[in-house]
Formats: sequence, structure tokens, C-alpha cells
Amino acid sequence: MSSTYGTKIKITIFGQSHSPAIGVTIDGLPAGFPIDFTELQSYMQRRMPGRTAHSTKRQEPDEPEFLSGLVDGLTCGAPLTAIIRNTDTRSSDYEQIKDIPRPSHADYTAYIKYGEKRDVRGGGSFSGRLTAPLCLAGGICLQILQRRGINIFAHIYQIADLHDKPFDPVLAGKDEMQILRTSDFPVLDADVGNKMKAAIEEVRQDGDSLGGIIECITTGIPAGIGDLLFDGLENRLSAVLFGIPAVKGIEFGNGFSAARLRGSENNDAFVIHNDEIRTSTNRHGGILGGITSGMPVLFRVAIKPTPSISKEQTSVSLSRKEEVRLVVTGRHDPCIVPRAVPCVEAAAAIAIYDALLDSAGYE
Amino acid sequence: MSSTYGTKIKITIFGQSHSPAIGVTIDGLPAGFPIDFTELQSYMQRRMPGRTAHSTKRQEPDEPEFLSGLVDGLTCGAPLTAIIRNTDTRSSDYEQIKDIPRPSHADYTAYIKYGEKRDVRGGGSFSGRLTAPLCLAGGICLQILQRRGINIFAHIYQIADLHDKPFDPVLAGKDEMQILRTSDFPVLDADVGNKMKAAIEEVRQDGDSLGGIIECITTGIPAGIGDLLFDGLENRLSAVLFGIPAVKGIEFGNGFSAARLRGSENNDAFVIHNDEIRTSTNRHGGILGGITSGMPVLFRVAIKPTPSISKEQTSVSLSRKEEVRLVVTGRHDPCIVPRAVPCVEAAAAIAIYDALLDSAGYE
Amino acid sequence: MSSTYGTKIKITIFGQSHSPAIGVTIDGLPAGFPIDFTELQSYMQRRMPGRTAHSTKRQEPDEPEFLSGLVDGLTCGAPLTAIIRNTDTRSSDYEQIKDIPRPSHADYTAYIKYGEKRDVRGGGSFSGRLTAPLCLAGGICLQILQRRGINIFAHIYQIADLHDKPFDPVLAGKDEMQILRTSDFPVLDADVGNKMKAAIEEVRQDGDSLGGIIECITTGIPAGIGDLLFDGLENRLSAVLFGIPAVKGIEFGNGFSAARLRGSENNDAFVIHNDEIRTSTNRHGGILGGITSGMPVLFRVAIKPTPSISKEQTSVSLSRKEEVRLVVTGRHDPCIVPRAVPCVEAAAAIAIYDALLDSAGYE
Amino acid sequence: MSSTYGTKIKITIFGQSHSPAIGVTIDGLPAGFPIDFTELQSYMQRRMPGRTAHSTKRQEPDEPEFLSGLVDGLTCGAPLTAIIRNTDTRSSDYEQIKDIPRPSHADYTAYIKYGEKRDVRGGGSFSGRLTAPLCLAGGICLQILQRRGINIFAHIYQIADLHDKPFDPVLAGKDEMQILRTSDFPVLDADVGNKMKAAIEEVRQDGDSLGGIIECITTGIPAGIGDLLFDGLENRLSAVLFGIPAVKGIEFGNGFSAARLRGSENNDAFVIHNDEIRTSTNRHGGILGGITSGMPVLFRVAIKPTPSISKEQTSVSLSRKEEVRLVVTGRHDPCIVPRAVPCVEAAAAIAIYDALLDSAGYE
Repeated sequence: MSSTYGTKIKITIFGQSHSPAIGVTIDGLPAGFPIDFTELQSYMQRRMPGRTAHSTKRQEPDEPEFLSGLVDGLTCGAPLTAIIRNTDTRSSDYEQIKDIPRPSHADYTAYIKYGEKRDVRGGGSFSGRLTAPLCLAGGICLQILQRRGINIFAHIYQIADLHDKPFDPVLAGKDEMQILRTSDFPVLDADVGNKMKAAIEEVRQDGDSLGGIIECITTGIPAGIGDLLFDGLENRLSAVLFGIPAVKGIEFGNGFSAARLRGSENNDAFVIHNDEIRTSTNRHGGILGGITSGMPVLFRVAIKPTPSISKEQTSVSLSRKEEVRLVVTGRHDPCIVPRAVPCVEAAAAIAIYDALLDSAGYE
Repeated sequence: MSSTYGTKIKITIFGQSHSPAIGVTIDGLPAGFPIDFTELQSYMQRRMPGRTAHSTKRQEPDEPEFLSGLVDGLTCGAPLTAIIRNTDTRSSDYEQIKDIPRPSHADYTAYIKYGEKRDVRGGGSFSGRLTAPLCLAGGICLQILQRRGINIFAHIYQIADLHDKPFDPVLAGKDEMQILRTSDFPVLDADVGNKMKAAIEEVRQDGDSLGGIIECITTGIPAGIGDLLFDGLENRLSAVLFGIPAVKGIEFGNGFSAARLRGSENNDAFVIHNDEIRTSTNRHGGILGGITSGMPVLFRVAIKPTPSISKEQTSVSLSRKEEVRLVVTGRHDPCIVPRAVPCVEAAAAIAIYDALLDSAGYE
Repeated sequence: MSSTYGTKIKITIFGQSHSPAIGVTIDGLPAGFPIDFTELQSYMQRRMPGRTAHSTKRQEPDEPEFLSGLVDGLTCGAPLTAIIRNTDTRSSDYEQIKDIPRPSHADYTAYIKYGEKRDVRGGGSFSGRLTAPLCLAGGICLQILQRRGINIFAHIYQIADLHDKPFDPVLAGKDEMQILRTSDFPVLDADVGNKMKAAIEEVRQDGDSLGGIIECITTGIPAGIGDLLFDGLENRLSAVLFGIPAVKGIEFGNGFSAARLRGSENNDAFVIHNDEIRTSTNRHGGILGGITSGMPVLFRVAIKPTPSISKEQTSVSLSRKEEVRLVVTGRHDPCIVPRAVPCVEAAAAIAIYDALLDSAGYE
Repeated sequence: MSSTYGTKIKITIFGQSHSPAIGVTIDGLPAGFPIDFTELQSYMQRRMPGRTAHSTKRQEPDEPEFLSGLVDGLTCGAPLTAIIRNTDTRSSDYEQIKDIPRPSHADYTAYIKYGEKRDVRGGGSFSGRLTAPLCLAGGICLQILQRRGINIFAHIYQIADLHDKPFDPVLAGKDEMQILRTSDFPVLDADVGNKMKAAIEEVRQDGDSLGGIIECITTGIPAGIGDLLFDGLENRLSAVLFGIPAVKGIEFGNGFSAARLRGSENNDAFVIHNDEIRTSTNRHGGILGGITSGMPVLFRVAIKPTPSISKEQTSVSLSRKEEVRLVVTGRHDPCIVPRAVPCVEAAAAIAIYDALLDSAGYE
């Protein structure tokens, strides 16, 4: 425990890869908000499998059914619950996992935690499929934030040694970023994108996989969001983002590269711009002392390579307590980074919307 | 808000750099634990200023007074509160901050958040001084963990371009690590340490500062600690670690470098070793699906360069809304990385002890 | 907010009277527990409308569909979500509520809180129908508690001026209490029960309603459950019980009647009984200092008369801001006390199971 | 655990009866609030022992020392911590409690919970002395509420069979109530007050004690405060109020007496009064569906008779596991109801202020 996140809005995610359904409850939404269901559907579409040649072949419509929280398509103030049925569940694919944990999956730790009675089918509740309700909740939060002029964009920053053009941490050009929303391979530099696709195709044919880095920027966020110590915006964002399977690192602004810099190279001067106080650079990633400065919030997350690979690997039989050779079968993406992009946006939307509400009404 | 962390133990930190005292309340400690006060004092000593040539000259004994939670030196089950008096508070040093926020400090965001009546003296509650009660609480948690065979060590992993010898993520040799506890400059390779000191001295004379990376390892932690989704151990650790001022990034196991790797290079094979299941490598940093695998928990945090530098910088006058040139005076470390090492251990001890208690089932 | 309760188990309830479904997510259940679905169904049956001549005519099967958290009928450690479809929703009955709040319902306060876009149909999320998922969650917790030898029973203690035989707070005879589980009018004294039914029938014919008091006892609970100050078992039980619509008071042990007693009349002597320490009387209701003493936990809750009555009442038109005369139509119970009995047991089961898990130490 | 309460403000109470100090941390206070320390001191004075002939002889100045959260007497947005030194601690009085738990005290349950190493002196952290920091925190919240036009008053409603004049639940005459603030025996009817004092004196001479009922009213509270289900204002108030030792029951509006009423006798008609919507009566105690209606919030709490009496009682020796006869010595009030009055106001102020902040910023 716990599958619940938040202070002012509470997001509760439930379901397993092969349970009848997965879903989410969002408590704390305002009454009267008109969710754009078409936009939400196309948002969720972005993390769906089977869209491109590069992703798993599992095909599911992923159409959410809204069970509560709405009246005539508007939020009504009551907790909103939406579910997504699991239809394409070929459970037999996963029989051997019960005894032989897949390397670098949660199979083994789930076994230790929950014992024989855990749900092994498709990774159970550790499945990446649980990011569908995360995107659903985040997509709604994002729509509310957008209404307030706050926007969140993410792109593939790096795959293998290939780097996309980074976001401009100061200007954060919106026109450029809007294309990320509709792309099935969200990069700013299409040429690099093609090289990345080729690299993914190469490992796919090799039965292997690739990781990467996703960069995320939040524009239009007012200064003053976030709180002291354990409720800083960095803490809050991390608390949601590490809920995405495969995320193994997070850094804000200059992040780890600041380790190599001097203070004079890493500090951001305060300046007056259009009669407003801002910083001339944004090495701090929009957060100082856990609180937003009014500059774009900028962070990157590290995504590990898909642990499911077709190459033979060493594992153990839990029942016989001996080493065995294992070939992981079933559907899997050679690189989940493209599909993780909307998940990162969604996680950020949830943490930021919650922090925003929590910072409101401060008298 | 909030200055409180935890589920099964709750840590509440209070105080400002120049308030009468700073302190911490720890709720949820077991009754009957014999705190080793000498060990605790020397633990806290490690983050104290003024110990070496490389750190700020502010001198404070930092001796905690225990107000509650103890009977005859043993915990009694009631919340333990300890305070540390602020004695050496030269408030006049900080007068100009009230109008001119220091670049890359929390001065500006605190102004936005709390307005005119915030505590500007010494950074108020955003001061690094608040890590003293963090170390106090973490030092106690660490003693309890050690009794259970769990140990936490951190060292300076990188300063500028200088890299210490990394921890062995699998063997995690304890003898070697024990020296880190008593060192005022905790590195595994003394030669690199000397180069780092020289680099710090160089920037100090230049009126500048340096950041770095701290690596932390937890040994002896049982498999099965941590929970699904938002309560994974990575989420929990981040939620405390970003409470340390200057932390701007965190990565587990291979972390960001996994972005460059293939799955076959990043996966950890399960093997049988001394009749126990473990992994042959530890690229996952001891955590899979948010839950410990029984391997050492390994992470690194990025520390930004001290924002207080003696070089002239650009900032703004809040009252006049115009740009000004600023020279930050007062005491400050050219590199806080060495003093941050015990803070990282302390934060990890708090998160891990809480997760451990939370994972203990009645069943 | 919030529709979530709990520390070690988290119960999240969602839905409105006329939304597609209502339901509950239970996070923190152990893996491998074999839910007795037949027993659960008959438990939920007890709060269902339409069972007796005395309750509303609305007929719904209330059969839960389990969406997650189970594998082959056993819990698997993942959050369990179950939903109940709303089928018999004659929304037209409730049209006038939109403008004219029913006296002593939540219609007016929901209007103030959520505005025009609230769900007015059937009381929205303030409907007593939300106690169905509460009973579902509580029924599961109760099954787990029973396995550990802890049982919870409630009965109608008082309706109008008619008093059932009270529970024996010390001996708490289980044989006698078992009949409460299967009765559609749970009283210990059948004669009094018949008089209560007659009293309810009388007000029903009069277009009026009746309130009452429910008494609840927990047997077999170990000493040591509950915590200091705000997490005492009394605090925890109240926090769930006031989640049942119509509950307006709670008292433990002697409760309000202790106001009239002297200490010598209200204290409970500690005695040795069968080599165990216990108290000879149980005026403290099994809780001292917020922590269980090992004696049965005994409390009573006050249930207000059903606010929906057929008599003409005065209310206001929200749109015209003028007083109007109102006759509440639609289905309603003249006395919800009998149906509230399993809800009280369920609420107690949730609070007690959570406290029990939270009191389990790793140490 | 837990000694922390709240969502938007967090109150953490610490200390034992005989620890060096007791105290409280309040997190979430606004910056810039000018605490009236004189008023706060006289507020805290009301719960102090030794003020009248009717209370314990223990004399302590109870002057709080403020350690953090203030700058020049104004709150600064950082957590406010205040402590009260325990000076008059005659620990020897309590030696025998270690082996022989006092009937109806928390001595026995503390022993079960914390074992041999619990703090037995003066009841440890279960002591009524912990209500001093509660009053401190509540007194500050009350001052903030008063600035917003919200006021909270409590009086002795009943002692033995003597009833004070009840509050007018609709008109809630402020002039009349103001005298309660300065009285050392807060009643509305001085004659009844004198009879109560005589009754207390009588039991005192008899070595016995008395309980009572306290009534509390909150005026000026806006409609719309409180939330669905488990975060209703009744749930929130109970969660704090049962943190006061000796509270064994709570009821809102008509409370338990509603059990005897018909709906037509218990419902409150909505009417237009001075162009505002309100109810003509206030049997609902100002809360419908967990949310305030704009009418005064009215509740009563039951206080059990002081368990410390001079009469000989039966208890057990924990070490010898045999029954013994016990005479409780040391200082104790024959009736703590008068001193509990400000504690009830304080608890209400904390819960209401937190709910108010939590309801703000609702968009």
C-alpha cells in the first residue's frame, strides 16, 4: 500500500493486467467541469499499444466507462470513477512466470511480498497497463490545468545515444511543442526521431530492447506552488513519477550535470522582463526551495530498457530453487519510451494540479 | 505544508535558521530502544559546519535537548521531541536579502509564498540548518535499523569531474565503508579525496562554489519492503531526499545511464548463491516494482553548487522592481557535498525504516 | 474530499444514487484470503431495501461485480475493487429537489458546496445507497476479523421509547447474538421487536418517520489496539461511523450516562479471571486512553429519523429565494434503523481492522 | 501513533506529564498573523489546575516558549512550535502505578501497548496535561477564526443531575456567551453553577468524583464547510475531540434525543430570514451531510468522572498477577469538567479551522 496519491485531489488506481477491469477514482475534482472526452480519448490513445510498428501487438480499445462523478458529461463534485475493461487477455502466455521470475521485472519481488496467491498474469498490478488509468486521471487534470493557462509537454529526450533537441527552458515555445500532442513518436527533431526509430527496429530484430530519457516541461505555472521540506514540488512530482514502471531516475533543471558546474555557472540571475520578475536562465528547473519560481518547471526521467527481451536469460525456479535458462515469450515493446511520454505528462499533471489546489486558499 | 513525513513513523521538523531553536518530533518509535547518544552526537557532528577548512565558519555546538519520548535514556513509545538551540545567529548579515533575493536560493519563492512576513534571516526555514534535526531523526532510525542488521552508507561520488571509487553494488564491502562514518570527507579513495579538496579550495579562493553527487547504499535490507505504485521505495526515498536543500536529482541502480543500455545489458539475472535467490548484478539498485529484492539498495543524488557565492551577481529589488548587482556576504560553504553525506544517509534511514514498519503485516 | 479512509487498509467509496454504478476500492488486503461470497452477499442483503414491509419499495439486486484484487476467488494483494450497478433509478422522482431542498437532507449543503452542477438525483453521493459499498468493504473486513476470533454484532437498541435488551458488556454472549446476523429486524427481545415494528407501521401510516439508537459490540479484540491522542480507537471509529448518513451521535461504554455518575460508580475494577487480567465491569466500553483493554468494545450510535416524510413541510425555492410548501414524494423508509444495523457493523469492522493492522509492530 | 491531526493545518502534540517539556507544532499557519499572546495566555489559564477550590493543587505557570514560526511576534509561514516546561513534577507520587494500574486510567492499556518501558509518571503521554498544548494550538486557531467572524463557545451543560441553561441553537446570543470566556466556572445560569460547585465539593469531601456534559457552539461559520463521507465535519470534530482524555461521547444537534422523535419533530424547515436562507430551528446542529448549513454548529461531549478517586478500589499487581486493594494518591480534580471546557473549544477550533482551509480554493 498505497495505490492512492494526493492531498487535495486523491487518485486511487486499481486493477491488474488480466483482472476484469482496471480503473481509477479521482476525488476532489471541482463540480461543473466539462471534460472533453474526445480529447481525453486521443490523449489516452497515445500510450496505447499497437499504434506503431515499434510497440507490442496487444490490441485493446481502452475505452473508459465512467461509473460516477458525472452528470450530463460535467463533473458534479463527487468522486469520479472510470474503468477500462481488460478484453485481450491471453493468460496462458504467462504460465511459466509463476515459477520462474523474469529478470528485472517485479515478478520476484511480488512473490516475496504477496506469496503464492499473487496475480502473476501479465505482471498483475505491476503491469505497465496500470498506466492507462494514470493517463486517464492525468488527462483530466491536464484539461483543468490548461483552462488555467498551465500546459505540460513531454518528449523523447534520448534513446540510446541519440538526443532530441532539448526544450528551451526559458522560452518554452508552445507552437513547437503542440506537435508533440499528436505525434506517435514525440520528438522535436524529426530526423533524430527517424534515427531513434531505426535504432529501436534494430534492437527489436535482435530480440533486445532500449531505454531512454523523457524530458517534461510545464509552462504557465504560477510562482508559489509547492511547500516546505517534504511537500516541495520536487518531492511531489517524484512521488507520482516513480509510480510509472521503468522510471529509475529523475532530475530537475540542470540536475546531475550541475555536479560538474560551479555556482557561478549554475545560478540563475533574477531580472526584470516585461515588468515581471523572472530569471534570465532556468537551471533551477522552475523550482527553488521546493516552490515554483514562475519559470517553466523542467525535469527529465530515466526509463530503463524494457526488461522483456527475447534473448535467453538466466533465472531461477522458485519451487526447485535452482538456476534455469529462460526465454521470455509474449508481446512486448522493444522500447516503451514513446508510450511512456504521455504517462510522464499525466503524472506531472496530477502532482501539479494537487500542489496547485493545496497552495490555494493560503490566507 | 507539510513538514511531516511518514506513515508508521512520523517525522515533523520545525524551526528556522535564526528562530530560538530548531527541532524534530518522531512519532512511532518503539518503546524500550536504548539510543546511543554518543554515537548520535558524533553522527550529527558529521554535518556540522566549521569542522574543516572547506566549510562555513559558523560554530554551533548543536547539542540536542530531549524534551519528550524518553525515560531513563530509553524510548518510551511516546513521541520523541528534541530541539537544538540557535545560538550563533548574526541576523544583521541577512538584512539585504529582505529586498534582494539571492540567486538560486529560496528567498524569492519564500517571498511569493509567505509575503512580507516570511523569515528572511539565514534563509528561514529553507536553511540547510534544518538538516540538523533531519540528521537527528535519521540517526536514531539508523541505530534501530543497524540493530536489525540493516546499514546505510553514503560517500562523495563525484565533485567537479573527480570521481570516487563507486560502491560495489553487489558485494558492498562493509569494512571498507565503515571508515566513511568517521571521516570528515567521506570518500573511498583518499587520493581522489585530496584532489576534490584541492578543487574545493580552488573555487573557494575564487569566491565560487561546487556541486557534486552523493552515492548511498543500504545493506542487509530484506526483500519485500515497499509497496505498489505511489508507495514504492523509490517514491518514498525521493519524498524525503528532495527535502534536503540542494538536491536536484535522484537515480536508482543504473539510473540515467540505463538510457544508453540495451535490456540485455541492464537486466539482472537471478541466480542461486549460498542457497539463496539473488541477482548476479545489481543494475536495478535493489528495487523492482517499488519493492526491495534483497540486494543492496543503491541510489545517487545530485547536489547543486552552493548558490551563495562571493562573486557579484544580478538580482532584483523587490520593492523597486528593478535589477541590481548583488554580492552575497555572510558565511557559506564553497561545497556542501561533504556535509550533505550524513543528511542523505539520514533521509534514507527515515524512509527505509518507515517502509520497513509499513511492510510488516499483522498476518 | 475525502471519500478515502484508513491507514493500513484504505477504503475508497465512489458513486451516486443514480450514477451508472457505485463501488469501493479496498487497498491493503492480505494476499490469499478466501472471501466467502455467499456470506458476503447475505451480509449485504441485510441493508437492502425492500426486504420487509417497513422499508422502501426500491428493488435492486445489489450484486457486486469484482473488477480487481482477486485471483480464483482469493485476494491477491492488489487493491480490490467491486462495483454495484444502479439499475432501478427513477430519476424523475427527484426533479423538484433541484430547486427546493428537502428539509434535513443534504440537498441544500450540497448546493452550497458544489453549486448548480451537483448531482441532485436521489441525493447524489449523499444518498444512503452509498452504504452498500461500505457494507461490502466492511463485510470483507469482518470476515478477516472473524478468522482471528474477533466478532462484531449490532442490534436495534432503541426506537421511539422502546428499548431492546442491551448487550451484556462483559459476557457478550455469542449464541444469543448470532441470531442478529440472520434477522431482518435485529433485536435480542422479539417482543420488543414486535412493538417497534408496530410503532414504525404507525408512523408510516401517518406519513412520518422514526429514529433510533443502535448498539454495537466487538468481542475477541485483543488489548493494545489503538493509539495516542488523535488515533485512539474512539477517534477512528467515529471517523468512519459519521460517514453513515443519519448518524448524529456516538458514545462508548457508559457514554453520556456517565455524566450523572460518580467515579466510584463509573470506574471498572481490574480483576484476575481465569488467570487473565480483565475488568469486572465494562463501563469504559473496552477502550482506555484510546487503546483497547481486552474487554468487548461497546458503543452506541444515534440515528436521526428519516428526513423524508410525506407530511407537508416548509422549504425554500433556491431560484426564487422564497418560502414554499413541499411534499417529499418518492420511496423512503419510515425508519432506516433496521437497515442501518449492518452498516454500523461494517463501519466498525473497517475501523477496527485498520487499527489492528496499524498496531501490529515489526518489533 | 498518531499524535498528528489535520489536512491543511497539521497539529503535532508531544510530551509526557513528567518529561522535561510538553509542546505542539502547528504547520500550515498563514504568514503575518499577529497572535495576541495576552489573550492566548488567559485562554490557556482557563484549563490550568489550581485556579479554584475545585481543582487539583498542582501549580505550574504553563507559560509557553515559542521556538519557531514567529518573526517579531507575527507568524511567518514556517511551522510554529511552542513548548511548556514541566516544573512541578513530583514523580514519587506515581511509583506504585508501575505495578498496579489505576482503574479506568490508561495505565493498563499503556502497559499492554508499550510494555515495561512506558512512561508511568503522571500518566505519561496519556495525562490530561497534554491538553495544555492542545489549548495552545486551539487558542491560536480560535484567534484566526475570530478574525473571520467565527466564534466558538462552550459551557458546562450538565454535572450530576444539574443542567445549565442550554445555548440557543438558532440565535446563539453572543453577549451572553462572552462571559464564558472569563469565568473560571463557565455556566450561563450562575445559580445552577453554584449548585454544581456544591455538588463537586460534596464528592470531593467524599473522596469521589463527578463527570458531566459540555455543550459547544460555533457561530458565524459559513455554509459549505466539510466534505463527503469520512471528511464530514462531524467526523473531523470527533477525530480531535476524542483526543481529549475522558471524552466518551459526542452528539450533534438533537443527537441521541432524536432517537425518540419523529421526522416531523426533528426536521428543520428552510426559511427566508433577512433575505438569507436559513433554518427556523437547528435540530441538525448546523451540519447536514457532513457539510455546514450556515446555522451554528452545535454539539455536546460526555466527560466521564475523574477516574482518580481517594476511595479504595480493586486492581491487580501486574508482576504478581493477583488482585490488590489500591488507594490512588496524588493530586487530582474531583471534577475536570470546568477545566475541560476550553479544551473542547480548542479541539473544535482546530478541526473547524482545518476544515475551513480544506474547503477553500474549491473551484
